[in-house]
Amino acid sequence: MSKAKPDDELVFLPLGGSGEIGMNLNAYGYGPPDARKWIVVDIGVTFGREDTTPGVDLILPDPTYLEEERDNIIGIVLTHAHEDHIGALGWLWPRLKSPVYATPFTAALVREKLKEQGLLDKVSLTEIPLKGQLTLGPFDIDFVTLTHSIPEPNGLAIRTPLGLVWHTGDWKIDPDPLIGETTDEAKLRAMAEEGVLAMVCDSTNVFVEGTAGSEGDVREKLTEVIAGCKGRVAVTAFASNVARVETALKAAKACGRTPCLVGRSMHRIFNAAQSVGLLQDVPHVIDEDDAGSLDPEHVLYLCTGSQGEARAALSRIARGEHRHVSLKEGDTVIFSSRVIPGNEAAIHDLQNAFLEKGVELITADDHFVHVSGHPARDELRQMYQWARPRIAVPVHGEKRHIREHVKLAQEMQVPEQIAPSNGDLIRLAPGPVALIDEVPAGRLFVDGNTIVEAEDDALKDRKRLGAEGSIHVSVAVSGKNAILAGPTVNVRGLSMEDEEDFELALEELERAGQAAFAKLNHAERGDDDLVEASLMRAVRKAAERLWRKRPLVDVTVLRI
Amino acid sequence: MSKAKPDDELVFLPLGGSGEIGMNLNAYGYGPPDARKWIVVDIGVTFGREDTTPGVDLILPDPTYLEEERDNIIGIVLTHAHEDHIGALGWLWPRLKSPVYATPFTAALVREKLKEQGLLDKVSLTEIPLKGQLTLGPFDIDFVTLTHSIPEPNGLAIRTPLGLVWHTGDWKIDPDPLIGETTDEAKLRAMAEEGVLAMVCDSTNVFVEGTAGSEGDVREKLTEVIAGCKGRVAVTAFASNVARVETALKAAKACGRTPCLVGRSMHRIFNAAQSVGLLQDVPHVIDEDDAGSLDPEHVLYLCTGSQGEARAALSRIARGEHRHVSLKEGDTVIFSSRVIPGNEAAIHDLQNAFLEKGVELITADDHFVHVSGHPARDELRQMYQWARPRIAVPVHGEKRHIREHVKLAQEMQVPEQIAPSNGDLIRLAPGPVALIDEVPAGRLFVDGNTIVEAEDDALKDRKRLGAEGSIHVSVAVSGKNAILAGPTVNVRGLSMEDEEDFELALEELERAGQAAFAKLNHAERGDDDLVEASLMRAVRKAAERLWRKRPLVDVTVLRI
Repeated sequence: MSKAKPDDELVFLPLGGSGEIGMNLNAYGYGPPDARKWIVVDIGVTFGREDTTPGVDLILPDPTYLEEERDNIIGIVLTHAHEDHIGALGWLWPRLKSPVYATPFTAALVREKLKEQGLLDKVSLTEIPLKGQLTLGPFDIDFVTLTHSIPEPNGLAIRTPLGLVWHTGDWKIDPDPLIGETTDEAKLRAMAEEGVLAMVCDSTNVFVEGTAGSEGDVREKLTEVIAGCKGRVAVTAFASNVARVETALKAAKACGRTPCLVGRSMHRIFNAAQSVGLLQDVPHVIDEDDAGSLDPEHVLYLCTGSQGEARAALSRIARGEHRHVSLKEGDTVIFSSRVIPGNEAAIHDLQNAFLEKGVELITADDHFVHVSGHPARDELRQMYQWARPRIAVPVHGEKRHIREHVKLAQEMQVPEQIAPSNGDLIRLAPGPVALIDEVPAGRLFVDGNTIVEAEDDALKDRKRLGAEGSIHVSVAVSGKNAILAGPTVNVRGLSMEDEEDFELALEELERAGQAAFAKLNHAERGDDDLVEASLMRAVRKAAERLWRKRPLVDVTVLRI
Repeated sequence: MSKAKPDDELVFLPLGGSGEIGMNLNAYGYGPPDARKWIVVDIGVTFGREDTTPGVDLILPDPTYLEEERDNIIGIVLTHAHEDHIGALGWLWPRLKSPVYATPFTAALVREKLKEQGLLDKVSLTEIPLKGQLTLGPFDIDFVTLTHSIPEPNGLAIRTPLGLVWHTGDWKIDPDPLIGETTDEAKLRAMAEEGVLAMVCDSTNVFVEGTAGSEGDVREKLTEVIAGCKGRVAVTAFASNVARVETALKAAKACGRTPCLVGRSMHRIFNAAQSVGLLQDVPHVIDEDDAGSLDPEHVLYLCTGSQGEARAALSRIARGEHRHVSLKEGDTVIFSSRVIPGNEAAIHDLQNAFLEKGVELITADDHFVHVSGHPARDELRQMYQWARPRIAVPVHGEKRHIREHVKLAQEMQVPEQIAPSNGDLIRLAPGPVALIDEVPAGRLFVDGNTIVEAEDDALKDRKRLGAEGSIHVSVAVSGKNAILAGPTVNVRGLSMEDEEDFELALEELERAGQAAFAKLNHAERGDDDLVEASLMRAVRKAAERLWRKRPLVDVTVLRI
């Protein structure tokens, strides 16, 4: 490795994931301030919320800063295949156009994603073996095997002339992960001997005492729970937790049940796992449409939709709308999953819908059928003891998580800590850690096929339309400024208890429009913008009086 | 009390709150099946959710069944003043028109509510003293003092010729409630001696082990926590928890701070409490607009908005939009409140907004600054030991709570249990408890000034508008079926990254409308419905292609 030049700096720049759970996007820069070389670590999404971002499926980190630095980006390195770490690649790669590096399982899922978006031929995607090594300009990167809730979770040991950064990615310390090796403790201890400048670390479960628990223990308990079930059994879990999927499949076999995958992402990840040599020793899995013919006692459905997602398999089953799977009294649904914050209400609605049908529920509240993939406090402490970094840089959390993680690092006597927010340009070396700049950061929304900025009027309008409804007024006006037809109103999203009252309300809106037009003088009537504005105001006022709501009112003047 | 006639029955009918938290509405009927007399117990609301019911503030239980029985309803009895027990009175009383009975504090808040809705002169509202008695036809009702998180929580001992029903309302066992007496244990034991036919009981916290804890302990801890704060302190709590309000006011004084109420409902309930003789011995409270002049160390704000409600005081303070109150680095917000399920995301957003400003947060996770008002499992067990009912009827919970409560009652060896859903007509006597009928039950939405049914198209349209946006097409057609102007499109809630692309998209929509019109023959062009339908289909198809979204498309044909 070359030596640092006098004006070289090592900087860290989080652009997503520091201030929210999800949407991770991190960058490391090396070189003099005016000529840094960058690597990007992870490029994930978060999901839209119906209350705050209705109609938005995905939320992406705003990559504007990196886009401007595009020529200086040497590579995009992915730690693991969760959507909050890889999901934005297909959307944002065209803006960054840098080669991508990932281990085999992650690469398999990335390839599929790129294929869907027509990018497969354009992106250079290099597979790095587990425990592999990669040199990108001034960055020498070791992939370090960790444990998490997906195959192939890697931490990155990033060596630079100014020091070694230990970027954990997502991790826990699972003594029995079932798939993949256990945490590479020897490597971590060796890094500490070498000297760790900074540890950039997962904060998700910093409020959780103790340890996360092991997939091995879940396998034992889940098998026992399924053995005790009568009728049909449906297990819901994250498809990406391949160890959990394997557990469900093996438990099915042990209990004399034939497993059946339900939901698109179950099939997708099952296939990706098999393509890299995982899930080889599992029972034969049947198709959804064949499962109906099996005796209830002899089937186990493995379903997507543990978060109450309206369009996922489990919600459709609960609503009785699934083509092939139906559950009824005496059947059992096992939630082998956690409640992602923000989804509580949707999940409880889903669970209550099953209870309403007489379906039994088993959740992680009752039985040990789920473990988290993120480190609880004792695991965080252990990691600090192993790595002994000079600087603690908590990421991957809301403000409150990051702040709590800083406190924990202080307790662990880490000499320096910093609590980053997205867009903070942080100098790790030389000198003490310091916030040296703030760069643009934010969120982009994937809305249909369009990427929309957070401040976009279309989203504001949609929230108003959703809460308040819409009124459109059409009016035809002659060249001599006389009304030839209309104003005719079209009302959506507003109703009245009595149909007749509603008709009267429409008439009142139209009269308000007429009256507003009548008030204009001849010249004003010739100005379409003015006609639209005055009708809009009059109709909106009438609507507010009629419904005590504030619908969006638009007017179209057709000039004949 | 008169004796039961041979065909007399005692029935229980939950119409709200059995299957959801909130919106409690219960009825008891007595008499022969074709001539029952009814009392209604509580008549509450629940709150709309932005994800599932955008724009809806309040949700009411559907009273259709009781409306039909209106002539047989003898009275509406209110157990306590929480919105989920009294909030629907103003909306639904005109459909029931029955006299109302409540203890003084509840009556004070009800009067205010009726006044706002112009009903005060119409409703007969009778104040019952604490531990008072009320006879309504075949029902002899004792008000039994309990403890909860609001002044004057009453259970109702409802005696009928066929037995005594113990309707708990909301309760906990607080050994030191600060306001009001402790649980009237002697009365409960005496009821057990007399024989309790059925206990209709709160299920909210059936998943919580142990006991709820005491307001007295919160007072001690909250005072200690406030004493340790520097800068401004804002405490947020439910205004209706008058003991907690008193605690905050007294703690302010003890710490040399002047208390200031922030938020409309704080003032409203403060005044109601004082009107019935509560909050007499508290320090002088100043107005919001005077609090700005105080030294930061000498003020304590008591705020509404602990649930992250966007329009409440605390959210406005977090957004920097409050006229009189601003908090910054070094100030502290204390959440003396719980997270109501469904509000997690909104509350975390609010808390993160404060952390972003450098404001310190203290919550019930860190310190003992809140206790629930509902019974945890040990308190439920105690109540079963005191009352020893023959039948357990868990209410006030989602399906999963009620189901769990049935299991707990089984453990307590209650001879009979039943898990009611809204609309279940349950015969409590004579004979074993039985579901004898199902009557219409459901939800009504308060939308602006209108009461809307759950299936109303307006709400479905609004959800679609919110997620997908809206397109309106206006076209003027001559009597000879030629287009005179338009089609002109108006698009709301859809955008494109490039403004020019958006203009091209509008043109494409208009061309799609023109093409659809061109395809119609002369006769078809004379049929407005047909013109609208074909333009609508064509424009919708074009929009789906352009945006990959499914906006609501409407067409107005102006016939000249």
